Amino acid sequence: MSVTFLPVRGLPEIRPNDNLAHILAQALRDDCTSGDVLVVTQKVVSKAEGRLVPLDTVEPSPFAVTFAQAWGRDPRHIEVVLRESRRVLRMGPGGLIISETHHGLVCAHAGVDLSNVDGGGSACLLPVDPDASAERLHVALSNTLGFPLPVIISDSFGRAWRNGIVNVAIGVAGMLATTDHRGKKDTAGYELHATLLATADAIAAGTDLVTGKTDAVPAVLVRGVAWQSGDGHGQDLVMESTRNLFP
Amino acid sequence: MSVTFLPVRGLPEIRPNDNLAHILAQALRDDCTSGDVLVVTQKVVSKAEGRLVPLDTVEPSPFAVTFAQAWGRDPRHIEVVLRESRRVLRMGPGGLIISETHHGLVCAHAGVDLSNVDGGGSACLLPVDPDASAERLHVALSNTLGFPLPVIISDSFGRAWRNGIVNVAIGVAGMLATTDHRGKKDTAGYELHATLLATADAIAAGTDLVTGKTDAVPAVLVRGVAWQSGDGHGQDLVMESTRNLFP
Repeated sequence: MSVTFLPVRGLPEIRPNDNLAHILAQALRDDCTSGDVLVVTQKVVSKAEGRLVPLDTVEPSPFAVTFAQAWGRDPRHIEVVLRESRRVLRMGPGGLIISETHHGLVCAHAGVDLSNVDGGGSACLLPVDPDASAERLHVALSNTLGFPLPVIISDSFGRAWRNGIVNVAIGVAGMLATTDHRGKKDTAGYELHATLLATADAIAAGTDLVTGKTDAVPAVLVRGVAWQSGDGHGQDLVMESTRNLFP
Repeated sequence: MSVTFLPVRGLPEIRPNDNLAHILAQALRDDCTSGDVLVVTQKVVSKAEGRLVPLDTVEPSPFAVTFAQAWGRDPRHIEVVLRESRRVLRMGPGGLIISETHHGLVCAHAGVDLSNVDGGGSACLLPVDPDASAERLHVALSNTLGFPLPVIISDSFGRAWRNGIVNVAIGVAGMLATTDHRGKKDTAGYELHATLLATADAIAAGTDLVTGKTDAVPAVLVRGVAWQSGDGHGQDLVMESTRNLFP
């Protein structure tokens, strides 16, 4: 069975209070078939949800000012990053901050992004609850289309020990986020002890290949994945603190 | 432009000293077209290269015995993991070892695997030099096919802070491993400071969706990726120690 990633074309620029589900449904109507998974980038979900903070409204703390000045960063951006963080893991060269967001996601700059937003005048925050955002899109689109359409909300994360970014799934609805092969036997009859596949992350990662960071392709249909229906969440991919070896 | 992941079917069980390039060429001949990328799992590359260690030939060190007994692990497996490691980052509950391999890869158990190998009687090591393995397959297959076929050797890695495994690229040949968007302007005219896309990792990750851990699909053709030709390597994805914030 092959798997195909299809960019969703023709979406307008998304703005606060846009009905994203309605806009996506219009764009998908002719292209989407039962069994597809829809991946939507965090950026358009956040924009539609109004998760934009004009930088000129941000009063940076002394801590944010000190760190930003040391690395030539905008103190207002650093301030927003700190507000979106539950805790900081590392503050590195170049003004890089690796922190844990209020959702438990560990990533650079708490997912706060200046790019692709109003020419840089606003910071774009992650959705308040990416799983709830995915669920709303999943329910609305499934109702409109007449079949269940799983929805993944993606964001591009750096990784420990590896260069470059890949997309991961920060919100999931309408499918299981992982595929559990633990306890199954492989073709040699040997038990696979540790094989929990991060299915939603694998789907999100593949969308990098069709979106392009400078193009405006904020949604991708993925066809042919043997996804499992169920009440999966992006939070299922967030490692429990008790298992975290890199706190 | 859509991207499609096509499983390569009909490959026999790979054994030491098999000519993997020849076997792949036979399987690909009718299916492969110019522009495709071939992803081959580490397991079959290692098998063809004879990177199998019969466990009954392994004399575990006292350190390996102590750690293995504490967690109900096979001391010979732990011994092989330590031998394949340059340094250990964490030794965790359940006998989990996170180490840096001699290639600089940070992963669980130094990529040493007991599954899918001879019913568990041998340990399968990573290739000695996955980039060289990829290069050999790339050169041989490109010559046979008459057009350049980039080759990625994949392995499934866990991640810090996230549950589940995804495939990553440990060897690359015939294409750039990353796509550099740094310095480009996005659609809002804002400069994208930090966007180095881990293209080869994104390609590898997507193959998880068609291979399946219990099926025997050790190779995947990826069609439609706008890969950049060049002398890329899996090592390009290994973060330099000077940039590593999680040593």
